[in-house]
Amino acid sequence: MGKVYLVGAGPGAPDLLTIRAARILAAADIVLHDALVHPDTLKLAAKARFIDVGKRYGKVSTEQRFIHRALIEAARTHAVVVRLKGGDPMMFGRAHEELDALAAAGIETEVVPGITAALAAASTLKVSLTRRGIARTVSFLTPRVGKGETASEWLPAAMSADTVVLYMAAGAGPEIARALIGAGKPPSTPVALVESATLESERRTHTRLDALARSGATKAEGPVVVCVGEVFRDTAHELQIEPLRIHEHR
Amino acid sequence: MGKVYLVGAGPGAPDLLTIRAARILAAADIVLHDALVHPDTLKLAAKARFIDVGKRYGKVSTEQRFIHRALIEAARTHAVVVRLKGGDPMMFGRAHEELDALAAAGIETEVVPGITAALAAASTLKVSLTRRGIARTVSFLTPRVGKGETASEWLPAAMSADTVVLYMAAGAGPEIARALIGAGKPPSTPVALVESATLESERRTHTRLDALARSGATKAEGPVVVCVGEVFRDTAHELQIEPLRIHEHR
Repeated sequence: MGKVYLVGAGPGAPDLLTIRAARILAAADIVLHDALVHPDTLKLAAKARFIDVGKRYGKVSTEQRFIHRALIEAARTHAVVVRLKGGDPMMFGRAHEELDALAAAGIETEVVPGITAALAAASTLKVSLTRRGIARTVSFLTPRVGKGETASEWLPAAMSADTVVLYMAAGAGPEIARALIGAGKPPSTPVALVESATLESERRTHTRLDALARSGATKAEGPVVVCVGEVFRDTAHELQIEPLRIHEHR
Repeated sequence: MGKVYLVGAGPGAPDLLTIRAARILAAADIVLHDALVHPDTLKLAAKARFIDVGKRYGKVSTEQRFIHRALIEAARTHAVVVRLKGGDPMMFGRAHEELDALAAAGIETEVVPGITAALAAASTLKVSLTRRGIARTVSFLTPRVGKGETASEWLPAAMSADTVVLYMAAGAGPEIARALIGAGKPPSTPVALVESATLESERRTHTRLDALARSGATKAEGPVVVCVGEVFRDTAHELQIEPLRIHEHR
């Protein structure tokens, strides 16, 4: 029986994964990876074969049950199995379900953390998510609404934290801004949108909740995090607020 | 004029920093580092000289103004200056003040993210901080109270998020638990305490808010994160709740 490593690939740039992740990839016999993992990251697994189990936007996605079956089958036939996930495996993935399925099958697991998108965005924006006297609490959440869920599921956490980073927020920017203003967040609250953080195609936009609420489209080619809070107030950028020019990939 | 890299050293284990961080350390002429950075991480900076500007608990700490002066002076006399911070530089550090001081002095900066303690704890616990149907919001905060601040500063964010990770919480466990129960969090809410995550000295304790509130001492030799929320309910550990045996380093 092999061992399955749940490994965080980091936010995008291939050199933003950990040394431990690189070492495990080099030893991997088989890699089951997300859609958004950089090709150069996959090259680190020089002797592995690859299975793309990626899910992305509305495109064809692999059913979670298939991923579980593929992981168990891989562990029965390979010594070193890597489940490579974008960002950190323990945030907004379905690592828990995969770990449960592997444990039920008696397969050994190990988790290797990765740089999550919010922290990659903070680095590229050069904005500390916490700041003395301004921000001592940080919330990460997704506005994606599942069956029977509404914005009321995430609004309280977003309203009570000083700094909020919303994941999987491409396309939802105006809706998020309207919900936050409606719940009482000041319309002048600074917002930074970061698309494809740390990749060459990275784009950063500085705006405010009211401008974002009025904007027509926050369409994107890559993953977007929406960062909201006073820490994102950047006087250098206050004068160059401009319409969002993010276009959706089809 | 040199360039200053604010680099995240990750949670503790030397192989949990990024490839980019390792490459920058290898090129470093001078490294100004926190107290808790692993000696093997420092060895990656083979040709650098080191300045320990660490702050730890109540011990002698370097004044922030001195750190700013030392960074500016280092950039005037060295090409590659690394400011190496534990975890991620943009969470609960004072990166913002350092970046401002360097910008005011006209010195170029770059930020390299690191694995933050909460995500290291999630990996070592094998617990996903988000989980479908159970936890869609995550809050990171510190219960450390500054001048004129009280628990009321962080309680709303802690109460409204499904999963909460409290940083710099060594010694504050019982106080945190009483504050959360007092604000209405169910006393049976699962808690995981992780001390020195990812180091050989790592210790994990599974408990509940009520047991933690009654406990006498959450003293620790290393940094502790207190993880609170339903995702930390671990039936395998429910039966082995035991008194905390964490002792303070003096």
